[in-house]
Amino acid sequence: MMMENKGILIVVSGFSGVGKGTLVKKLVACHDNYALSVSMTTRAPRPDEVDGVSYFFVDKDTFEETIAQDGLVEYARYLDNYYGTPRKWVEERMSEGKDVILEIEIQGALKVKEKFPEAVLLFVMPPSAQELECRLRGRNTESDEVIAGRMKRAVEESEGIENYDYIVINDQLDECAAQMHEIIRAEHMRPYRRIDYIDHLRKELKALVKGEE
Amino acid sequence: MMMENKGILIVVSGFSGVGKGTLVKKLVACHDNYALSVSMTTRAPRPDEVDGVSYFFVDKDTFEETIAQDGLVEYARYLDNYYGTPRKWVEERMSEGKDVILEIEIQGALKVKEKFPEAVLLFVMPPSAQELECRLRGRNTESDEVIAGRMKRAVEESEGIENYDYIVINDQLDECAAQMHEIIRAEHMRPYRRIDYIDHLRKELKALVKGEE
Repeated sequence: MMMENKGILIVVSGFSGVGKGTLVKKLVACHDNYALSVSMTTRAPRPDEVDGVSYFFVDKDTFEETIAQDGLVEYARYLDNYYGTPRKWVEERMSEGKDVILEIEIQGALKVKEKFPEAVLLFVMPPSAQELECRLRGRNTESDEVIAGRMKRAVEESEGIENYDYIVINDQLDECAAQMHEIIRAEHMRPYRRIDYIDHLRKELKALVKGEE
Repeated sequence: MMMENKGILIVVSGFSGVGKGTLVKKLVACHDNYALSVSMTTRAPRPDEVDGVSYFFVDKDTFEETIAQDGLVEYARYLDNYYGTPRKWVEERMSEGKDVILEIEIQGALKVKEKFPEAVLLFVMPPSAQELECRLRGRNTESDEVIAGRMKRAVEESEGIENYDYIVINDQLDECAAQMHEIIRAEHMRPYRRIDYIDHLRKELKALVKGEE
């Protein structure tokens, strides 16, 4: 008898330009076990943004109240605005059996691991540093200074890779998404995620052996 | 640039009758990354057994000398004969990049994990207790007493499942073997198994950033 798994909290990080957003969208589109976390923010919505889809848009007081109530998995302040991951939304999806993906950077990732030691942290790597720079240039939206800044940030971030549970190499998009999916499937087979199934089998074994005595 | 991975030491355990031998043979037959460990023993070879293939057949003095030299990953004494896993053979295969599979029971598995903390321990589970008993009966080679003994042993062994890194459920053989292969592929993506690749990327990133300053 297979018992229903609780969902896994998955953190996806990686250098700017490595393609993690595309990977995450692909995972959500191709498999029904994933839910992409919706952040809470105090910044104003842009014209095309929908509350509860792009972000949960709240005012500063509400955000700070949520912090005070330990209602966020992690949060950060950036350019006078707050951004954070609502704990309730995440826990509800996980209870429904969804694997919830958070796309956040390394500081946030480490905070998540503290609060949720069973979270799985994935770091998306480029096949090479040249390829990373090439992808940043290929966007054609950023100045040389911005690109140089992102590359410097990659050097800093690369020091934290050992804090992650797994790396994945985004050489070919489909292969990389498949590999992420395999890792999550494997993580579902941890004994501590299958306690119900293991306990059920133990009881069945004992009952059978007892019945034969 | 992809660096060559060192192989992983894989321990496969499971209740008698669960089909772990068949699973392991399938993995070795279907994928070229696996090598099945050859045990060393002091018992006499049977007519169809080949030294170095079925077992490494040695005398008692040689075996005890190997123990004294810490030359075994694990060993056990059973019915006045020694059985063990030669460390040198295992380490050589791993250096060649092979994932080495040891099919051993729980006590041996825990000894392996002590000596090789990076070993991956898999426990093969039956879909149900009834199905396990059914498979044992289906062999048609064992008496009711022997089967009852194996079921009792399963109850005892089931207490140790949480010591394993993963469980896999052998409902359908091909699916279960595929799942074991996925788990091993995932384990190859641990940062501590990809240090060379990560260090190489760090150096590349630093060189690129420095060249642009």
